[in-house]
Amino acid sequence: MTTPEFEPVPRTTPTRSRERVGYDRAAVHAVLDEATVCHVGFVVDGEPVVLPQLHVRVGDRLYLHGSTGARALRMAGGPGLPVCVTVTLVDGLVLARSAFHHSINYRSVVAHGVASVVEDETEKSAVLAALVDAVIPGRSSQVRGPSARELAATTVLRLPLGDVSLKARSGPPHDDPDDLALPYWAGVLPVTTTTGRPVPAPDVTVPSPWPQPPATEQTAS
Amino acid sequence: MTTPEFEPVPRTTPTRSRERVGYDRAAVHAVLDEATVCHVGFVVDGEPVVLPQLHVRVGDRLYLHGSTGARALRMAGGPGLPVCVTVTLVDGLVLARSAFHHSINYRSVVAHGVASVVEDETEKSAVLAALVDAVIPGRSSQVRGPSARELAATTVLRLPLGDVSLKARSGPPHDDPDDLALPYWAGVLPVTTTTGRPVPAPDVTVPSPWPQPPATEQTAS
Repeated sequence: MTTPEFEPVPRTTPTRSRERVGYDRAAVHAVLDEATVCHVGFVVDGEPVVLPQLHVRVGDRLYLHGSTGARALRMAGGPGLPVCVTVTLVDGLVLARSAFHHSINYRSVVAHGVASVVEDETEKSAVLAALVDAVIPGRSSQVRGPSARELAATTVLRLPLGDVSLKARSGPPHDDPDDLALPYWAGVLPVTTTTGRPVPAPDVTVPSPWPQPPATEQTAS
Repeated sequence: MTTPEFEPVPRTTPTRSRERVGYDRAAVHAVLDEATVCHVGFVVDGEPVVLPQLHVRVGDRLYLHGSTGARALRMAGGPGLPVCVTVTLVDGLVLARSAFHHSINYRSVVAHGVASVVEDETEKSAVLAALVDAVIPGRSSQVRGPSARELAATTVLRLPLGDVSLKARSGPPHDDPDDLALPYWAGVLPVTTTTGRPVPAPDVTVPSPWPQPPATEQTAS
């Protein structure tokens, strides 16, 4: 049965700033779904490696797609690859009256687990479609689907979401009472990620599927 | 002597997509300077951990600031903490005529090394000022500086930049020749990160240091 919250475990329980941490499943899903890239950490010869990857979430599975390196993929294809996948969205720059209380507003998900190579072709096809649809909803039915050769050339990793936590900060700066009267501005600069006007490929012949671009940039959904 | 390029070493030489990798020092610096957060990977009990951190670059040193966890900080204070720090900027969503050639335009820096706790108070003060100035140039002289107690409560890690590489993709999709005539739009959706209108703290009494906000959101510099 799916519970509203992920179960906290020692490695998802922070030693500091506990008030910023949560396990709400829907909130975790929302952060994973909003982000374009995640950062995947794994261990090679005892040393950490962190690489950016594209991802898509399907239920409580996170799928990873990108060049992970031959050695990591060999491990993932055998016993599985222990990974830590982290996704961070920056929501604002927090300016306080003191240097010390400067911060950022953000939402960050950290997921620990063992990633495995997706071998099943049906699952792999569905994931590749979901990856394309994560960019533009419905896009996967408006492109040529993968050939058998392309499917074979693509490696997708599956990470079951279990040991997961969400850390977030929002709202105004928290200045010390003694600093409130200082003659310095304080507040938040909101940070937004937007997509701009589509740039057609040089050889494209069909019209853009988007309406006439607006005069200003539009906010990404 | 500083060379125009970082020296490639085995762990900064990829096994795939070599054409996307470079070592240009100025380009690496630019990516690190543009990004607000980095993702820091380290190893705890043989398992990978990846956490978002604020960072600032000073010359060929990358300084990290954030809650790294008590155990990692103990290691960093002693022999040093082996880390992999990765910074990724997403520049565009690349839509091809085939699902297989969908991609993103991005710039990503991966830096390997050993991070150490900054013990010197002069260096630590300079880094904290640089962290604030990285948000808004000149801001550190327009706030209350850190007290001795605040300095003591702050941990900053220093990572010398040496084993560093930059991976990037730009430009239009690369469709297969056989797909060029397909009736599907192809191109790039540019992705931009912008800062919006400043939101004053509820109790702020001085005017915003920014000019009258424009009618539309402004692009971050």
